[in-house]
Amino acid sequence: MKNSIGREIPEEIINGRALYGGEFALNEEVAKAAPKVKPVKPNESKLLNSIEEAIIKTGLKDGMTISFHHHFREGDYVLNMVVDAIAKLGIKNLTLASSSLSNVHRPLIEHIKNGVITKITTSGLRGGLAEEISNGLMEEPVIIRSHGGRARAIEAGDIKIDVAFLGASSSDEYGNASGSRGTANCGSLGYAKIDAEYADKVVIITDCLVDFPNMPASILQNNVDYVVKVDKIGNPSGIASGATRYTKNPKELLIAEYASKAIVESGYFKDGFSFQTGTGGASLAVSRFLRDEMIKKGIKASFALGGITKPMVEMYEEGLIKNIFDVQDFDLDAVASIGKNPRHYEIDSSFYTNPHNKGCIANKLDVVVLSALEVDTDFNVNVMTGSDGVLRGASGGHCDTAACAKLTIIVTPLVRGRIPCIVDSVNTVITPGESIDIVVTELGIAINPRRADLIERFKDVDIPAYTIEELRKKAESIVGIPDKIEYDDKVVAIVEYRDGSIIDVVRKVK
Amino acid sequence: MKNSIGREIPEEIINGRALYGGEFALNEEVAKAAPKVKPVKPNESKLLNSIEEAIIKTGLKDGMTISFHHHFREGDYVLNMVVDAIAKLGIKNLTLASSSLSNVHRPLIEHIKNGVITKITTSGLRGGLAEEISNGLMEEPVIIRSHGGRARAIEAGDIKIDVAFLGASSSDEYGNASGSRGTANCGSLGYAKIDAEYADKVVIITDCLVDFPNMPASILQNNVDYVVKVDKIGNPSGIASGATRYTKNPKELLIAEYASKAIVESGYFKDGFSFQTGTGGASLAVSRFLRDEMIKKGIKASFALGGITKPMVEMYEEGLIKNIFDVQDFDLDAVASIGKNPRHYEIDSSFYTNPHNKGCIANKLDVVVLSALEVDTDFNVNVMTGSDGVLRGASGGHCDTAACAKLTIIVTPLVRGRIPCIVDSVNTVITPGESIDIVVTELGIAINPRRADLIERFKDVDIPAYTIEELRKKAESIVGIPDKIEYDDKVVAIVEYRDGSIIDVVRKVK
Repeated sequence: MKNSIGREIPEEIINGRALYGGEFALNEEVAKAAPKVKPVKPNESKLLNSIEEAIIKTGLKDGMTISFHHHFREGDYVLNMVVDAIAKLGIKNLTLASSSLSNVHRPLIEHIKNGVITKITTSGLRGGLAEEISNGLMEEPVIIRSHGGRARAIEAGDIKIDVAFLGASSSDEYGNASGSRGTANCGSLGYAKIDAEYADKVVIITDCLVDFPNMPASILQNNVDYVVKVDKIGNPSGIASGATRYTKNPKELLIAEYASKAIVESGYFKDGFSFQTGTGGASLAVSRFLRDEMIKKGIKASFALGGITKPMVEMYEEGLIKNIFDVQDFDLDAVASIGKNPRHYEIDSSFYTNPHNKGCIANKLDVVVLSALEVDTDFNVNVMTGSDGVLRGASGGHCDTAACAKLTIIVTPLVRGRIPCIVDSVNTVITPGESIDIVVTELGIAINPRRADLIERFKDVDIPAYTIEELRKKAESIVGIPDKIEYDDKVVAIVEYRDGSIIDVVRKVK
Repeated sequence: MKNSIGREIPEEIINGRALYGGEFALNEEVAKAAPKVKPVKPNESKLLNSIEEAIIKTGLKDGMTISFHHHFREGDYVLNMVVDAIAKLGIKNLTLASSSLSNVHRPLIEHIKNGVITKITTSGLRGGLAEEISNGLMEEPVIIRSHGGRARAIEAGDIKIDVAFLGASSSDEYGNASGSRGTANCGSLGYAKIDAEYADKVVIITDCLVDFPNMPASILQNNVDYVVKVDKIGNPSGIASGATRYTKNPKELLIAEYASKAIVESGYFKDGFSFQTGTGGASLAVSRFLRDEMIKKGIKASFALGGITKPMVEMYEEGLIKNIFDVQDFDLDAVASIGKNPRHYEIDSSFYTNPHNKGCIANKLDVVVLSALEVDTDFNVNVMTGSDGVLRGASGGHCDTAACAKLTIIVTPLVRGRIPCIVDSVNTVITPGESIDIVVTELGIAINPRRADLIERFKDVDIPAYTIEELRKKAESIVGIPDKIEYDDKVVAIVEYRDGSIIDVVRKVK
């Protein structure tokens, strides 16, 4: 069956689930799920001696669901440590509900082969694990969920976490846990907070046990069953990168310049506006251009949102941004800021962009700038699969913020190497075209025809403007039309839209 | 049937519910309840024009449960406004699940008579409403719940809130609500936070609408359905008292001196200890004596907990208390402090002292000093009914913190006027004797025989020590034995222990 954007979803995959039918097609009242709680009395200790002991105490059994957060990114030691220990205990057939997975989680390949992990839901998949999965490693397709979609799924009970193993940069022995005040700091624990609230059992894993009470805490003691101290939770250099470098790539700078100009001329750039920008070179550069424009025009932002980076922190410290809402920190400046700047707020992923709560902060977003691997002439965006059809990306907050923001801008080069980035039809749809307002390339912009208001507004604006078809042709004229990727029938991943419907599938590469 | 402390509970009241069987007798795994949520999309407005409109929009119907918080105490306008509007709409047969009720809620009498409110659960009952209820106003007995017990009941689904009407000192139009930054400020909204998380519908009522985002917020937008702006949410002078005055009453000072000496000698008074003191004259004076001892001995407290008062704020600002955990503010100094002092943390009532979460902060409490209307020779404490048997008090966090703290001290005069405060058997048990360690009067202390360790430790301590029977006799020798209160059979209130079991009932006075 085809969903509303024409993606073919096999019947056996649908299996009673909703097909994507529009950004806010699924918007009915939902009943929240809730965990079971074993009360903890005064004088009971939560501190255990090992991860193995924690696994045993939680009662983890075959067939259950375990969760992890990805705030330690490529520096994460926690997931591999825990899954190794689980494997040694002979527990099998688990669902892994990580907020995301990275290159560092390559050891999962063996655990999948051995039947320890049989199902996965994640935002991202990269490296060796992603390649193996694209080549058919797993029986069950991975479910790719956006950050808002994962929060929704947890709150709705679609993901029922039996045991959450949550790494923390610091914790006290009663489970007040933080991404700060340790030796390997990640700042915000925004994606972990929801696991702590909804998992039946919560284990905090830290390498920095501090005096009670470890405040302010991202995860509070009343949601924590056990605390385990380990030698190292992660490699600090993989957790948060050092000083963010601004791009010197002239193509990226040109894209950023066009994008910031588009923002300035969009009508949304006024005092009290709000924005989110990503981590790519062009996206970071947009922040810098915006900053200059804000100073020039005397404009201050009400808030900046998202994965937080140094440029946002600098603008906050200059008084150009009044509030930062931070679900994840991408660099050391952001990590430091959340520990010291009073209006730099940690938020959880539901507050961030769960479509099915009573109003996420992304709903209040004026402008979001997002990257893309590919955009197609329906404005659909792929950030998940490479030009070879292999999984190598992350859904992230892409479709979430794109659906919510008043102005969604995609920054992408026209081509990358021999690969066109504006195509007839993207390999994999993460974000539907109806969420996208403007695509910005180094050649100029294409405005989504759905936004007649913007097309009208940009008539006299001095940015080269094209139709998306024109941009596609330009890209094609540079690199030609690449050969079609050859796929098997087997579905290796289901792409779930933020509302829980199926927006696309990823098939096994031949 | 009698419960484990010998209180007779009529069969028709038990009706399948557990009888009190010890502080931690009910400690099994519990399934948390969860609300239904109607998702809010971008661009949807939550701002309504009137309370009436909010009542209609929430779909409030006959037989539902509504909730309020008591942070505005005697200054509260919200509850009366809302219930008046509900009555005008002809809605009947509601359960009122307020965190507490005060003198100011006297207009409820009419709404009960008219069948608008037919059931009540609350921590406190005072004034005309309490008298009427004690005289049999309601068909259904009121359920008296402690602050921790109410949090437990909400999380367990024993209280299922259909619509929470939550007054806020300030809010933005999207429902980020605070007890600060308004014209009538209450500081912490600790008791309201849990309602916002568990109610199906949440209405914020404020008289101070501020720019988005109203941060930091006690209640977050993703838990709020509607926002209503009214002229006045309350009378500031009734919400928080001005400068707290220290008692000059020599009897209270003597009690405070003995109590603080008992703390100092208890073995719990050491660097990093934690404490909670109440708002009574003696209790406040204890803080002052403790402060002097802390300075003298170079001791700092890890945290102070509870309803927060000026002495705690002063000690924090002097560096004597490292952290304040604040569920409610009692005076303007405390209200000001939570808005400015970085380690003065707002906490919700579950984190405070819900017995059935994974470890409340009260579990970490070393010392709590609590008041009493009466204590009996089993050390049971009454803070709910007067010597005439009429409801005129509040369960509060009394039984909660008493059960949790390592050292629970009751401060009470031996007699009040012609009324003995140490008696053979209290009118109403709020806190069971097994939770009480030391009773302190102006004559001296009585240590609970269950605490042989303390009796041993206090052998050579220079505080006059008595058995509780001796104190009772002393009280009796001063004022004689008062006539027995004459009660009807009818039960007007059920006293629920924090774990949900029935610890006592209050009967209709003759």
